[in-house]
Amino acid sequence: MESMSLGQYELVYNALSFGIAAMGAATLFFWLSRDTVAPQYRAALVISGLVTFIAAYHYWRIFGSWSGSFVVDAGAGTIALSGEKFNDAYRYVDWLLTVPLLLVELILVMGLARAATISKSLRLGVLAALMVGLGYPGEIATDAGTRLLWGGLSMIPFLIILYELFFGLRESIKNQPENARGLVNLAIWVTVLSWSFYPVVYFAPLLFGAENANITTMSGEAAVIVQVGYTIADIVAKAGFGVLIFMIASAKSAEWRARNATLSDAQPA
Amino acid sequence: MESMSLGQYELVYNALSFGIAAMGAATLFFWLSRDTVAPQYRAALVISGLVTFIAAYHYWRIFGSWSGSFVVDAGAGTIALSGEKFNDAYRYVDWLLTVPLLLVELILVMGLARAATISKSLRLGVLAALMVGLGYPGEIATDAGTRLLWGGLSMIPFLIILYELFFGLRESIKNQPENARGLVNLAIWVTVLSWSFYPVVYFAPLLFGAENANITTMSGEAAVIVQVGYTIADIVAKAGFGVLIFMIASAKSAEWRARNATLSDAQPA
Repeated sequence: MESMSLGQYELVYNALSFGIAAMGAATLFFWLSRDTVAPQYRAALVISGLVTFIAAYHYWRIFGSWSGSFVVDAGAGTIALSGEKFNDAYRYVDWLLTVPLLLVELILVMGLARAATISKSLRLGVLAALMVGLGYPGEIATDAGTRLLWGGLSMIPFLIILYELFFGLRESIKNQPENARGLVNLAIWVTVLSWSFYPVVYFAPLLFGAENANITTMSGEAAVIVQVGYTIADIVAKAGFGVLIFMIASAKSAEWRARNATLSDAQPA
Repeated sequence: MESMSLGQYELVYNALSFGIAAMGAATLFFWLSRDTVAPQYRAALVISGLVTFIAAYHYWRIFGSWSGSFVVDAGAGTIALSGEKFNDAYRYVDWLLTVPLLLVELILVMGLARAATISKSLRLGVLAALMVGLGYPGEIATDAGTRLLWGGLSMIPFLIILYELFFGLRESIKNQPENARGLVNLAIWVTVLSWSFYPVVYFAPLLFGAENANITTMSGEAAVIVQVGYTIADIVAKAGFGVLIFMIASAKSAEWRARNATLSDAQPA
């Protein structure tokens, strides 16, 4: 570690604690709101909550690993490395579970036909797992070349997913009820934009002269960008995205209930 | 730390533990009461519980940080700083999440039209986040001038919110059912009065000759006022306010059920 200041350490510390609170609260919100939507959209809310629950667990672990890696001297206002190793892998384990589930969440709330739901979930889920798995060797690498290589390989499934979202899923927007089309379109855009933020954070340390994201060798500035950057991206892509999924499910439920009410009113006639 | 006594330390310690118990219990009350109100008011109770859940998490963290910052010698009846740094930021991280949600809670229980609910929630939520964000640099500043500057800036969104509550929300009280008008009016007053208590606590250390709220340099008296003051304000503004929201939701549900029963009674005629 070249030059991490106490202020930089605390910024990451508080961002990670914010992550725990935000993911935990989002989980309970999705699960408690489950029975306010029509039965066919409840699975999407259960999965939204699973994603933020898994993330809350990992933020809990990352927070512990981060605070365990440093020793703070409050009197002198300084920090030093404790000798415990900061575990970069928690984020990747998290993404391996949550990123495929995020795509399933989106596919479920669109209410496609059963066969399309299964085939799209499988294809996009496998691509997402591949994207995360290929990124990891670069994240822990100790030289810029390896980071670029694996980061570049990881971009291939990433770009295929974006292509699928834009040309596969967006096409079925016209089959959505009118009151949900704008929201579904927004959810796809939030996915594309928030996911695109991850490669930016991934490659950012290179711009700060840090060859890797290992806190024992990386500059304080690069460590803050990676940790705070991933935290913001995770909160938008998981909790914020989940709120959008909830809004889509609510809008489609209202439309479904109105349609059913009209049908049953019409029945006796 | 100039002169924190063991008694002052213990007063804050017990107030923080009281905060954990009060917020945790309030959370369970709101969520367990959720299905006793009419469906359209359940979201308000879910959010009331989220606010106190997030607060319970942060009180648990603040309690741990407070007790970790001191070493007590029970035999000698003295305390000393442990060298661990007390984290002032937990309260701000908490408020960043909970203060916008408190406003959403109030807007939801008023049952405005969908567009008004969304636009008011967004506007007041952004103002609340701005108010909290602007306050933080002053809270951690080491001189009185910086505390006054950021505290003063934070008062701008605060006053706009108060204006909106008084002239925006109070106006729609006349659209509330008669049995809920007094309670809605009370909820707005509780918001205004309990929120006004925060700037008083924020600026209080200056009156006690403490230039900042850092426990390593602030007088024991000022630290007690800040910690106990914020705890009381939080319990009133989150748990107490939530109970009012529950009472409003209950009153409006009773009125709604009575109205619906009359309608279905009328049907056969």
